[in-house]
Amino acid sequence: MKNNPTFKRIALMGRHQPNHIEDTLRAIDGFLTAQQYPIVYDTETAQRLSYPLKQVPLEELHAHCDLLVVVGGDGSLLQAAKIAVAQSLPVLGVNRGRLGFLTDVYPHELAIIAEVLEGDYQEEQRFLLSAEIFHESQHITTVEALNEIVLSPGNIAHMIEFEIRVGDQFVCDLRADGLIVATPTGSTAYALSGGGPILHPALNAVVLVPMFPHTLSNRPLVIDAQSHVEIQITANNEAVPFVSGDGQKRIPIALGDTFRIQKKSDTLRLIHPRSYQYFQTLRSKLGWQNKH
Amino acid sequence: MKNNPTFKRIALMGRHQPNHIEDTLRAIDGFLTAQQYPIVYDTETAQRLSYPLKQVPLEELHAHCDLLVVVGGDGSLLQAAKIAVAQSLPVLGVNRGRLGFLTDVYPHELAIIAEVLEGDYQEEQRFLLSAEIFHESQHITTVEALNEIVLSPGNIAHMIEFEIRVGDQFVCDLRADGLIVATPTGSTAYALSGGGPILHPALNAVVLVPMFPHTLSNRPLVIDAQSHVEIQITANNEAVPFVSGDGQKRIPIALGDTFRIQKKSDTLRLIHPRSYQYFQTLRSKLGWQNKH
Amino acid sequence: MKNNPTFKRIALMGRHQPNHIEDTLRAIDGFLTAQQYPIVYDTETAQRLSYPLKQVPLEELHAHCDLLVVVGGDGSLLQAAKIAVAQSLPVLGVNRGRLGFLTDVYPHELAIIAEVLEGDYQEEQRFLLSAEIFHESQHITTVEALNEIVLSPGNIAHMIEFEIRVGDQFVCDLRADGLIVATPTGSTAYALSGGGPILHPALNAVVLVPMFPHTLSNRPLVIDAQSHVEIQITANNEAVPFVSGDGQKRIPIALGDTFRIQKKSDTLRLIHPRSYQYFQTLRSKLGWQNKH
Amino acid sequence: MKNNPTFKRIALMGRHQPNHIEDTLRAIDGFLTAQQYPIVYDTETAQRLSYPLKQVPLEELHAHCDLLVVVGGDGSLLQAAKIAVAQSLPVLGVNRGRLGFLTDVYPHELAIIAEVLEGDYQEEQRFLLSAEIFHESQHITTVEALNEIVLSPGNIAHMIEFEIRVGDQFVCDLRADGLIVATPTGSTAYALSGGGPILHPALNAVVLVPMFPHTLSNRPLVIDAQSHVEIQITANNEAVPFVSGDGQKRIPIALGDTFRIQKKSDTLRLIHPRSYQYFQTLRSKLGWQNKH
Repeated sequence: MKNNPTFKRIALMGRHQPNHIEDTLRAIDGFLTAQQYPIVYDTETAQRLSYPLKQVPLEELHAHCDLLVVVGGDGSLLQAAKIAVAQSLPVLGVNRGRLGFLTDVYPHELAIIAEVLEGDYQEEQRFLLSAEIFHESQHITTVEALNEIVLSPGNIAHMIEFEIRVGDQFVCDLRADGLIVATPTGSTAYALSGGGPILHPALNAVVLVPMFPHTLSNRPLVIDAQSHVEIQITANNEAVPFVSGDGQKRIPIALGDTFRIQKKSDTLRLIHPRSYQYFQTLRSKLGWQNKH
Repeated sequence: MKNNPTFKRIALMGRHQPNHIEDTLRAIDGFLTAQQYPIVYDTETAQRLSYPLKQVPLEELHAHCDLLVVVGGDGSLLQAAKIAVAQSLPVLGVNRGRLGFLTDVYPHELAIIAEVLEGDYQEEQRFLLSAEIFHESQHITTVEALNEIVLSPGNIAHMIEFEIRVGDQFVCDLRADGLIVATPTGSTAYALSGGGPILHPALNAVVLVPMFPHTLSNRPLVIDAQSHVEIQITANNEAVPFVSGDGQKRIPIALGDTFRIQKKSDTLRLIHPRSYQYFQTLRSKLGWQNKH
Repeated sequence: MKNNPTFKRIALMGRHQPNHIEDTLRAIDGFLTAQQYPIVYDTETAQRLSYPLKQVPLEELHAHCDLLVVVGGDGSLLQAAKIAVAQSLPVLGVNRGRLGFLTDVYPHELAIIAEVLEGDYQEEQRFLLSAEIFHESQHITTVEALNEIVLSPGNIAHMIEFEIRVGDQFVCDLRADGLIVATPTGSTAYALSGGGPILHPALNAVVLVPMFPHTLSNRPLVIDAQSHVEIQITANNEAVPFVSGDGQKRIPIALGDTFRIQKKSDTLRLIHPRSYQYFQTLRSKLGWQNKH
Repeated sequence: MKNNPTFKRIALMGRHQPNHIEDTLRAIDGFLTAQQYPIVYDTETAQRLSYPLKQVPLEELHAHCDLLVVVGGDGSLLQAAKIAVAQSLPVLGVNRGRLGFLTDVYPHELAIIAEVLEGDYQEEQRFLLSAEIFHESQHITTVEALNEIVLSPGNIAHMIEFEIRVGDQFVCDLRADGLIVATPTGSTAYALSGGGPILHPALNAVVLVPMFPHTLSNRPLVIDAQSHVEIQITANNEAVPFVSGDGQKRIPIALGDTFRIQKKSDTLRLIHPRSYQYFQTLRSKLGWQNKH
């Protein structure tokens, strides 16, 4: 450890398929411990690992670290992001050997991790969305997402009818399989498969992507992220649709009910190596440099 | 005329197919003249009309009016926009019976025009793009656009190879029929046919839409409008492509040369009736309320 | 009734929302009865109606009629199609006032119905698909469709991994929300919303449309309808997906299992008025003649 | 040479950028000559090469060979295809190190070329299109294509108005940048960039892909290849558009004039190695197996 690094105490997290990531966690642990960095683990990660370590409850991580290092894919980082935002912790993502949009340090790049700790890094603010769900005008629950909030059909029917409002303005009635409301971070994930555009991460905007709309001219719509989006489910749908955030936590939403999506005030502090370039990640992940 | 209306002196413009618009121009002229509003015409419009009127040179319009009323389609307003921006004149668009994205007063709504003049209106700032074209690093000319700057192939080959940079960052090499760089205003015009998203007019963003890209994952990219976009034509293209703005003024661009697109600092002051709603125009123009 | 009409005995069917269609059924019944055409109803339709009529069990319709007239939307005709094919009955669709792709007689066009009965009509053969579902190589059940067979995710995850084979050839591994395999008839329905092409009904082809594929170059694929398509669900999916036909009958399909889609040998005899034109229906339903 | 090989006399062709392909031509020549196969070259290829060889006029190739081996990319094979069809010669494509859709033998696979000559190969029939262009009802000229016939705008305006008929039926009026009419062979080329589906090569169908259509619901349309397509340019276009085949031979087409596209009766005999699989080429060329 250099004198007075930027990040002095590190939390390591990596839960998904620990058999694939234990080696990486152990390597990072060994490397940083050798440099005198104190390492902690959240309880859940700790319980899956087979080597001695210091564990703390998830909700107390912020008291024991300055930086959360997440080992895994973009999905792991999505989960960690909510914890990081709640505890105001910056996050560095280490992938499992294949570049992610959010996890841009390779597991063998231990030297880069050291550089980051010493202050040689880029920090980006990535915003999140919250969807507040109401039942008969009573607030029921809130779904959060770094990537996207999705309205999906329930079990039986695939077509949902709903009304979209942006700000106070009526946008349209839509008949579709659902709706994706994505952040710039999420614009290269599910929304991209659905035909949405790529939103540069520095953009303060969200994109509404209708899923399989019945009317072919219902195209993706990009709006200012300060606008709130209100969705009302039409009363005469055949099945109960649901709302999810980042592919998790499916909340059913009753016919006639409403949910409202807006930008959260807290943002994710996403840490990148100094050499990180957003467009380099795009080129690599989307195969733009492949010569077919 | 009420006491002290907001807009006291009016310029009328309408050049395209004057046989279709003379009736509308005459009706507006008669209606406003009866209310004591002084009316002027630019020379070119004046010369196409068959009734007595006061004409002034195009470049002196601002000295004789507070508001430019354009009769015609969106194409007419695109042309008038450059003049209006250069002379800091607000613009109101009157269509020829069919709603436009930019011309949202119907020709029979004379009362609405009166209300606008008296101060009952909405004003939007719509930004323009400029494309500065360089030959061997020397600035050659500038193309402006309210809708979009387009890079298109020349006569023979349809595939162009070029490199895109945003800010100082390399984005990608692209092989495509061309590239559309559109403002929010232009996002519902040519860029939409090319698969681009709809950008809300309040958004400070531009969208880059690759035209028929060879690599299918080259998708529309939305960036902050403050970023400048730099396009370099690869040296080994077979034909000389060209750059145009709003479908006008085609400037050839030599192989190896570069052009740079950025937001103009001056904006168009676009005047709408009080009742104008952007999403209502979208629904109408894109057929969202049709029941097929 | 003219001497020796082509269709001598008529079955009327119309179950969906009978309150909307009872008037139409009654009008057709009155009109044809006055011309001495014997009319029967299937039991289910009959039970929803409030006027005296002759009813026969659904499976015996063919013994009592030469033509099945279905009143309702395209969805009603989709359901009736399976019965008609099983009993080799031609079908004429009467819509509820809004043109359908399959129901092209308007309810007020009683004279056209008479002309059809007298032999003045066009007949098209529309083919159906069957999906045979296997569990551990044992055939479990069969799903049929006039429009499309769809592989959809189950409740939790939205991404499915599966392998596609056409004929004996491996096509690709796919990660997507699902897959639509559509007939020409279905190409203007759900598959069109999913980005598929329009297949002319005379074409002996099916289209495979990946739903929200993870790899953007996974595009719709049109193959000869004689080829059979085999889908194997990858063993490591997180949720159990299901197979449906024409939006009905959802059959869960276990991880590792397979289903095979092929053209049925029996076709639907779809009856149109003499004046029917396929492209006229396309123009009307897709809004091609709208002037926006 | 084995006793009695299937192809006894070989013509070698490779004109594009001969500096890149001379080594490959020389290697094939040496390999086959050593096996006693007589080799000829067309005059144009011969003149670009620097080693001794036997040359014959292009139009007499068929009298001197049983198989035309084309070295180059898909573009080279497109050009050779017209000659091969005119002279009823089968064609084998050897790429320049990067797989093509039509050139599927790698330059180092000399043993595979020998196997093909000895009869170990697959043969496919690929059909071509012809576009007959009429001026004031007089036939002017014919454009042929293995990939696609394209209607493109001339210099100034990018929007063309035209009417499409298929068979004797009016399809629609279209306002677009143009129209691509592609064969299955061409469906993975320009038409794919334009949003068209992939048509399996065994399919007897063509796809009409509107280019940047003004009406968003104007989607790709797949029709039977036996149908002829008739395009009439509307009289009131601003610029003279043109018709091209496989990116070559641009024929201007006057306002009000017509061209008719139909399948040619002669087909291309395309030779593949025994191990060739169409879907393997798709996976490779479209990056379907990439793990991003």
